[in-house]
Amino acid sequence: MTGRDPTAMPNVFRADNIADLSARSQDLIARRARALGPAYRLFYERPLEFVRGEGCWLTSANGDRYLDAYNNVAAMGHCHPAIVEAVSAQLGRLNTHTRYLDEQIVQYAEDLLSLFPAELSQVMFTCTGSEANDLALRVARHHTQARGVIVTANAYHGVTEAVAAISPALGPHRGDDSHVRYVRPRGVAIGDPDRLMESVAEAIGSLQRDGHGVAAIMLDTIFSTDGVLPRVDDLAGAIELVRQAGGLFIADEVQAGFGRVGPDYWGFRLHGLIPDLVTLGKPMANGYPVGALVAQPDFLSRFGRDNRYFNTFAGGQVAAVAAAATLREILRPGLLQSVAAVGQYMREGLLGLARSYSAIGDVRVAGLSIGVELVRSGAGEPDPEMAAHVVNSLASQKVLISATGPDANVLKIRPPLIFDQDHADIVLAALRKALHAR
Amino acid sequence: MTGRDPTAMPNVFRADNIADLSARSQDLIARRARALGPAYRLFYERPLEFVRGEGCWLTSANGDRYLDAYNNVAAMGHCHPAIVEAVSAQLGRLNTHTRYLDEQIVQYAEDLLSLFPAELSQVMFTCTGSEANDLALRVARHHTQARGVIVTANAYHGVTEAVAAISPALGPHRGDDSHVRYVRPRGVAIGDPDRLMESVAEAIGSLQRDGHGVAAIMLDTIFSTDGVLPRVDDLAGAIELVRQAGGLFIADEVQAGFGRVGPDYWGFRLHGLIPDLVTLGKPMANGYPVGALVAQPDFLSRFGRDNRYFNTFAGGQVAAVAAAATLREILRPGLLQSVAAVGQYMREGLLGLARSYSAIGDVRVAGLSIGVELVRSGAGEPDPEMAAHVVNSLASQKVLISATGPDANVLKIRPPLIFDQDHADIVLAALRKALHAR
Repeated sequence: MTGRDPTAMPNVFRADNIADLSARSQDLIARRARALGPAYRLFYERPLEFVRGEGCWLTSANGDRYLDAYNNVAAMGHCHPAIVEAVSAQLGRLNTHTRYLDEQIVQYAEDLLSLFPAELSQVMFTCTGSEANDLALRVARHHTQARGVIVTANAYHGVTEAVAAISPALGPHRGDDSHVRYVRPRGVAIGDPDRLMESVAEAIGSLQRDGHGVAAIMLDTIFSTDGVLPRVDDLAGAIELVRQAGGLFIADEVQAGFGRVGPDYWGFRLHGLIPDLVTLGKPMANGYPVGALVAQPDFLSRFGRDNRYFNTFAGGQVAAVAAAATLREILRPGLLQSVAAVGQYMREGLLGLARSYSAIGDVRVAGLSIGVELVRSGAGEPDPEMAAHVVNSLASQKVLISATGPDANVLKIRPPLIFDQDHADIVLAALRKALHAR
Repeated sequence: MTGRDPTAMPNVFRADNIADLSARSQDLIARRARALGPAYRLFYERPLEFVRGEGCWLTSANGDRYLDAYNNVAAMGHCHPAIVEAVSAQLGRLNTHTRYLDEQIVQYAEDLLSLFPAELSQVMFTCTGSEANDLALRVARHHTQARGVIVTANAYHGVTEAVAAISPALGPHRGDDSHVRYVRPRGVAIGDPDRLMESVAEAIGSLQRDGHGVAAIMLDTIFSTDGVLPRVDDLAGAIELVRQAGGLFIADEVQAGFGRVGPDYWGFRLHGLIPDLVTLGKPMANGYPVGALVAQPDFLSRFGRDNRYFNTFAGGQVAAVAAAATLREILRPGLLQSVAAVGQYMREGLLGLARSYSAIGDVRVAGLSIGVELVRSGAGEPDPEMAAHVVNSLASQKVLISATGPDANVLKIRPPLIFDQDHADIVLAALRKALHAR
């Protein structure tokens, strides 16, 4: 969208709205800005303050209950009792690190790897998805001795220097990206005529001509920040081109993984692909800081020969127990079938709304990752103002969603995986009201 | 030391010792190598497996109690009851992120900042020390629009791509370091004739000639991996040279901070310096993954104007509560005075041992960060074999320490801050026995 501030974030609080807020919020926002500095952002026209979480519900400081259809970290629900209990017990028992032997991290590693294709048989632990993606880049670059990376045009892969450079969603000031090439995934209803394979071939040629070589293509396998794209044409062919050029395929499953897409567990399975490296994060321990890199051993061998890896908090006993307790809940019979079913129910409800409201240009659903593209009636152009209206209208109706996409016009609905049809009905009713009011 | 494998780690378990171990350990090591891959390392000739932590003690899988004189993360003691209780309660209450308003993270930020000189008045949160150092580099590079960094010759600053590049302790295969220059801190008893200011001036000139410019000098303020150096000549002058060249001074307090050095709280205060940026990690939340960047606002303003910052798990309610509960314990009256007193007691005991055993070439103490340099009798050359002998002898006596330094010949004694004189006596007696046995 022309004229949009390239550093702007969808669904951001703007300080010029501060006079409308309660004295308490104004004071807290001022103290926060003073202590945390200028790089932090808040959600919504009227920022929210929560004091309690339980299942799909968050309770605000003034006692209102909000339905959480946005937060993907507490995927098993906020403050899940069995996970809290397991983590609390381990906190009181032992919390060291991976330079001592420990059964629990090895057992968890084996359990996790059993959910992957046989080729992906080793795992290294980090504390965050950013660290996992950063480690994936280190491994890919060491293996290939190349530096160039291909990502999608509105990708987000994290906040370390190395991964901020390959995260165009963060805006133009995130550091040197001379070694990064951008491609547009197809599959969006409104958008780009590029063919993915042609774009990737061009990116490979450009990286090679400029002497960077091709270390990897890194893809969020549901293309969350590109607007949620569960189906992308040419993907297998594009990845094959990267491999022919010596590069690795890194599947960033930080958002897609652990059942977000339903019984397939991992986004890469939606596309019938087997990655060389897979990164994990956000929902992995339901909020305890845990991430990981899952790898085909061939791609770890050179890195492991030449480098040792130690990450103080990663793979410790509490991290292992938190991740294991979360995995047990994800694997409970019926849960991921419910993710698929409730996602399909949401899809049908959203398509129903699309018949009444021409602002809905497209509905894209992968399990409980849902993108609703909003467009100007008739013209079919992206409508970020409408998206902002809907997001804030839902907040005033006490339903949490957000917006995403290169044009900030895609509603991002991404609830805990325990979301059910009753929750879905609340979201759909709130959306209808928001669309009707406009 | 000539002939030493540059990728080797002090105090590392070597797989050729595996036949000596119990069947259980052998099996666990094999499963671990299969699942976690080749980059992980274990401590000690005979790796240890713990199942319980309490205060300064760790209990092994076969029921032996080990005195922990090494682990600096659980600085308030393993599984500190009040911290465990506070974290557990918050895990059951709410665990979201910094895009909602929250009192607890703001209050903690204010409390933390009150322990810094007035100039250092803003703080950003991360999950790890690596992420904090990585963010410090991003901020320094954005502010200076330069890329070059100066570090010490055996520095360790973390594992992301950006900070691995400035961590020569990780060996020669950690990535491109063409933009990094290395200087040797003076102050070691045996060692280097370089004058620090001259080395830094040369590094600045080299970075400028090669077009990198000077973004920062980053220093662990107790020079932990360079062998523990609480006093370094020329430091203020060297930093002034960097500032004159436009670079920032980043104090890496991940190891030195939060009272490790005693009542001064921060290592930079030992040197009478005020950094531009300070990074925090390891002991910050007694084991819960929390790190931070503390900054003079002038150096955050450009970064915050051009970039937003969000780190999913960082600054959430549980992180805030874990860090706040830990800080309350650190600030308990008398604790940091005890750190200084027990450190001094250790120093006197070690100097007593040095009078009996010429293998001790130097004793360096900053609070409860203690380096004991071991040398060959007569020649005064570094003696890494003696260090390995002592470390493993202590492990067999059920006392945990490790080794460090560019020549792997410095005993690293770095216990929880609640260490007392009785604990110190156990360490000193075990050291005497180890030195005597050789």
